[in-house]
Amino acid sequence: MRAKTNSTAKNKPIGIFDSGFGGLTVMSAVNKVLPGENLIYFGDTAHVPYGSKSKNTVIKFSKDIAAFLTKSNIKMLVIACNTASAFALPVLKKQMTIPVVGVIEPGAKAAVTATKNKKIGIIGTEGTVGSNSYYKAVKKISKATVFQQACPLFVPLVEEGLNKGAITDEIVKLYVKPLTAKKIDTLILGCTHYPLLKNTLKKIAGKNIRLIDSANATASSVKKILEENAMTSGKNSGGKLLFYASDNPEKFQKIGSRFFTNKIKNVKKVYLE
Amino acid sequence: MRAKTNSTAKNKPIGIFDSGFGGLTVMSAVNKVLPGENLIYFGDTAHVPYGSKSKNTVIKFSKDIAAFLTKSNIKMLVIACNTASAFALPVLKKQMTIPVVGVIEPGAKAAVTATKNKKIGIIGTEGTVGSNSYYKAVKKISKATVFQQACPLFVPLVEEGLNKGAITDEIVKLYVKPLTAKKIDTLILGCTHYPLLKNTLKKIAGKNIRLIDSANATASSVKKILEENAMTSGKNSGGKLLFYASDNPEKFQKIGSRFFTNKIKNVKKVYLE
Repeated sequence: MRAKTNSTAKNKPIGIFDSGFGGLTVMSAVNKVLPGENLIYFGDTAHVPYGSKSKNTVIKFSKDIAAFLTKSNIKMLVIACNTASAFALPVLKKQMTIPVVGVIEPGAKAAVTATKNKKIGIIGTEGTVGSNSYYKAVKKISKATVFQQACPLFVPLVEEGLNKGAITDEIVKLYVKPLTAKKIDTLILGCTHYPLLKNTLKKIAGKNIRLIDSANATASSVKKILEENAMTSGKNSGGKLLFYASDNPEKFQKIGSRFFTNKIKNVKKVYLE
Repeated sequence: MRAKTNSTAKNKPIGIFDSGFGGLTVMSAVNKVLPGENLIYFGDTAHVPYGSKSKNTVIKFSKDIAAFLTKSNIKMLVIACNTASAFALPVLKKQMTIPVVGVIEPGAKAAVTATKNKKIGIIGTEGTVGSNSYYKAVKKISKATVFQQACPLFVPLVEEGLNKGAITDEIVKLYVKPLTAKKIDTLILGCTHYPLLKNTLKKIAGKNIRLIDSANATASSVKKILEENAMTSGKNSGGKLLFYASDNPEKFQKIGSRFFTNKIKNVKKVYLE
């Protein structure tokens, strides 16, 4: 039996944040499975990228954003950034009274379900890979062998709009070939930018390798938690979307539209001290 | 006649800052022409890169750093970052009582001196190119035709250590060919990271194109201003070097050493609020 909606939570929005545009792939997936929920997105474009920064700095930025979104009375927080999930999820879970979801655990679960030969590859930023978070999340639930590869050029490549072509092929080969040489059958896209490289990744990795996009896995997890806690809006359409960026709202609107199915409008600028 | 050294300024350090490592190419050049000066470097690695960020945000970061270096009693400030020079130089010049030098004017002057056919190309970050600062600096002193090209992939490429090779060749072609097609004879490297791509740039641009590295031009300018204002240390060796980074001091030490002739040691972390 589906739980009755908790009336105080009903109309509250879900907060979603990322260092920049990448988390919009997660917002898009959440909007697809929960089209009646109001969503607020915060892109920390003044501090992007997080992937090359240290744990303490990423935790500081994440706490500031969580505090900002809390003021908007959110009922749930989604950390739509792999680096921030790796570093800040435990801290925010402890600190906040609402459910907090990251992208790593759902992605790891999906990969463990998908792999047949128990060899899983992980690609991500320096921060995500260095934190070993996917590695630990997979190892917690499976005996699969895990191979990791940091791909620092993927994010700038996607933001430059180079999702395909000769240069992209070569850079993808540089990072992915060492993993395919290990005979992985499943590859976790451990950064929210990477779904935009899916076609090239498929071509270079080969048809036999299953690509795991954390965005969809995270969206399913968000839906499940809302339902279990009787926190859904109870609507099946018409959810409002709100966007904040800490810098360059115009650029956010322009590049962000590549990451999201809907056209992004009215991005507000808020710099957090 | 060389001016007598002003005794109060004698032992004060010169402050140099950049968004990250790139400005170390400027510090290295200053250290070569002024080996007796104490130098303090601040790399804003918590906010790197500046090149993709907005004017107001870059000004805010630059002011915070200038305030921090002022506490170290510096006698001169060098903005060793093209984006920060483009956006924050006028503000800092107005606000500070010590000489403030950027990298753009010296680079533009050197290019105007070098060009024969009066066709100058400029490569830089999105911020630098978008600000038109080199364009304006060249136009102020010359009637040369100026062609600009933003190269967002160069900084991540250099930071990944890919200064040469097939991928680098292709990316350099992507950005530089539109400029060589315009028959430029001089190319300003409008970002402090780009000197590390010099060999590839020479290869792709061709032998007939003169590359202008702002670092050397800026160092000459720093020396001239110190001498004219009787602010030199009066020493010819033994200048002390001090390094601060707002994040990841270990990474700063490791990657920074690629940008500087001397080995970088004892990087201190300071996050500016």
